[in-house]
Amino acid sequence: MAGEFDFIEWIRAQRAPGAAAPSDFVRVPPGDDLAVLQWLGGADDLLLVGVDQVLDGVHFDASHHVPRAIGRKAMNRNLSDCAAMGCLPAAAVATVALPKDASMEYAKELYLGLREAADPFDCPVVGGDTASWGGKLVVTVTILGRSAGVKPVTRAGARIGDAIYVTGPLGGSIRGRHMTFHPRVAMGRQLAENKVSAMIDLSDGLSRDLRHICRASGVGAEIDALAIPVHEDAIEMRRDGHTPLEHALHDGEDYELLFTAPGEFHWFKRIGAITAATTIVLDHGAGKREPLEPKGWEHSL
Amino acid sequence: MAGEFDFIEWIRAQRAPGAAAPSDFVRVPPGDDLAVLQWLGGADDLLLVGVDQVLDGVHFDASHHVPRAIGRKAMNRNLSDCAAMGCLPAAAVATVALPKDASMEYAKELYLGLREAADPFDCPVVGGDTASWGGKLVVTVTILGRSAGVKPVTRAGARIGDAIYVTGPLGGSIRGRHMTFHPRVAMGRQLAENKVSAMIDLSDGLSRDLRHICRASGVGAEIDALAIPVHEDAIEMRRDGHTPLEHALHDGEDYELLFTAPGEFHWFKRIGAITAATTIVLDHGAGKREPLEPKGWEHSL
Repeated sequence: MAGEFDFIEWIRAQRAPGAAAPSDFVRVPPGDDLAVLQWLGGADDLLLVGVDQVLDGVHFDASHHVPRAIGRKAMNRNLSDCAAMGCLPAAAVATVALPKDASMEYAKELYLGLREAADPFDCPVVGGDTASWGGKLVVTVTILGRSAGVKPVTRAGARIGDAIYVTGPLGGSIRGRHMTFHPRVAMGRQLAENKVSAMIDLSDGLSRDLRHICRASGVGAEIDALAIPVHEDAIEMRRDGHTPLEHALHDGEDYELLFTAPGEFHWFKRIGAITAATTIVLDHGAGKREPLEPKGWEHSL
Repeated sequence: MAGEFDFIEWIRAQRAPGAAAPSDFVRVPPGDDLAVLQWLGGADDLLLVGVDQVLDGVHFDASHHVPRAIGRKAMNRNLSDCAAMGCLPAAAVATVALPKDASMEYAKELYLGLREAADPFDCPVVGGDTASWGGKLVVTVTILGRSAGVKPVTRAGARIGDAIYVTGPLGGSIRGRHMTFHPRVAMGRQLAENKVSAMIDLSDGLSRDLRHICRASGVGAEIDALAIPVHEDAIEMRRDGHTPLEHALHDGEDYELLFTAPGEFHWFKRIGAITAATTIVLDHGAGKREPLEPKGWEHSL
């Protein structure tokens, strides 16, 4: 891309409405060596941080997906991590490694995609780094969240006897939802306020992400196969030799929340319970039970 | 790379000495959806954040540089941004996009390089994301710094009449120093404590980085060509048709600090002064003066 510095100038001019001047929170805006933020601090204002990358050919296909959608996905994956912890997105920084033939217009669309996803959460993009190279497109986003008075929900809090819930139907996201999902930020916050015991966003697939919770919590689980909400995309995909249930169990990138809680959460689908075992068992009913082995995606932390 | 999850397990086991359990600062360590940090908060504990990427073929050559050195450089570039603001490095998160044929050992060496650079500053790596892909190696690091009672030094504070200083000799870093430099963290902190007016780290080259300061501060500058400290690497490179001075003015990746101050800083090289002009003038002496046009690297924000 020619004129990278023009692009940086353009980004600096893209302040959020009403954020023309540095705010109490953003003390030094994008454009310096580092952005400067003011945290309230203390136990009630914890800082949460994570980073996630999307790669051409792995998480999107640059020959097929428009840059606006790629930018949105890069940001939304990080917002989904905020959802999984029950925190409020506060600010983000991003890098873009741009193929040499990408235009200025393409770079702008990527950035606008990032902003389109983040703006509804009042989450400014406070810094970044862009570079042209001979390789394919890479976008990374680092998200900062704040606990703002609600204890973050980790993966490690599941207790024996807790029920296991998911917030929506699963499977077949590759048909399109993996690019267009809406991160469950408000839902995750509400669940954290209601003191759910453990939570994760479903990026690697139910079978793998549930294992993350079980390992971190030192527990096992039993899943009721008939209770798993199967997305219509998973049903559409049955022609590939896998059942809709297999898609719901193992496909990645649903970005629904998987959580455990001792209490009842009637408005979400209860799919099983935490056990004292060291394994995860899938119960098909009529006495048919089998270990649930992880088969989901292997590309994220 | 086979077995990414093994690699993540390995990273989680690599806690800094004495950090086996979550500390007061790191409340939830790597391995959850996000790391959780406790900030003191308020005006005396500002949070600084920035991100930087290194790309194979642009910032390093994976066929020539060992992964330990690549990891070190990725972290050191970010630590250099902390130096430029005068803040203390506090924590980092990183992403690695690994070529498919990279081994587990290679990934470990990258990570150890990140740690080798960050550990002397008690700056833990609190999260990350790793993925294999068909492309070339990309490493990004996001750095969090804390102001810890010292006001961050921006690029915008240079005032007419201020002297301009550099902390070391410039030019020819491509001969090797761009991989092996030591970020001027302690020096930057000391300069911030001494209330220098503006500061930047020299990553894009003196001619370009000085322009960043002048633009952000709304001032001009006059540089004394004879006062510029020229590195011996720049002298070695004169055979390429550019003079040592040209290398010192325009080469990137010196990672020395360029700062302005109204007072005297005898232990650093004074190379010029801030003026009321809108341009930067290079004074060769004997009445020969010319505009200093930026010719440095164009790959970083």
